Amino acid sequence: MEEAKGVVKHIVLAKFKDDTTPDKIEQLIKAYANLVNLIQPMKAFQWGKDVSIENLHQGFTHVFESIFETTEGIAEYDAHPAHLEFANLFLASADKIVIVNYKPTVVRC
Amino acid sequence: MEEAKGVVKHIVLAKFKDDTTPDKIEQLIKAYANLVNLIQPMKAFQWGKDVSIENLHQGFTHVFESIFETTEGIAEYDAHPAHLEFANLFLASADKIVIVNYKPTVVRC
Repeated sequence: MEEAKGVVKHIVLAKFKDDTTPDKIEQLIKAYANLVNLIQPMKAFQWGKDVSIENLHQGFTHVFESIFETTEGIAEYDAHPAHLEFANLFLASADKIVIVNYKPTVVRC
Repeated sequence: MEEAKGVVKHIVLAKFKDDTTPDKIEQLIKAYANLVNLIQPMKAFQWGKDVSIENLHQGFTHVFESIFETTEGIAEYDAHPAHLEFANLFLASADKIVIVNYKPTVVRC
């Protein structure tokens, strides 16, 4: 097992408030994706809806994964005005959220 | 934005019980990683400790990401005897767990 060089993954799980329309969710996801163009340390972004069958999703419906090269890059992202503006909008529609960051140790790719 | 072809990510966030020793956690992670060798639909595995600074980790300390090609592959994995044996051990030491599966829509890689 070896640690992937220079990769820190920033994982967000979210459940949106019941009154959040699908259009609003789409708008938020587009704004999230656009941060890649605005914030230099954010190198990649992907997302998806939960399709789990284990019934252990604890209500979370969406997963967002952003890639950074360093934890300092995540700190820079967190503090960036474009992120702060987005985060205010996102958190206003979020019922539940979990954020974890990790440096992946890769077993097989 | 396009959906990554034939990839389903299986994300597990875990917090271990307070009495779980570091040795026990290491043993569980090795057993988890070894499932790649035992269960055909499981194509890759990576993991890491939470290093987040946002204080939204909700107590979760470890992240595990497994890669599958289909949701059917995850169902096959879930039902595999090697996984069932591992899951019993893992869940016995878990204080909190979230499992989500998603087909990533990639914005930039």
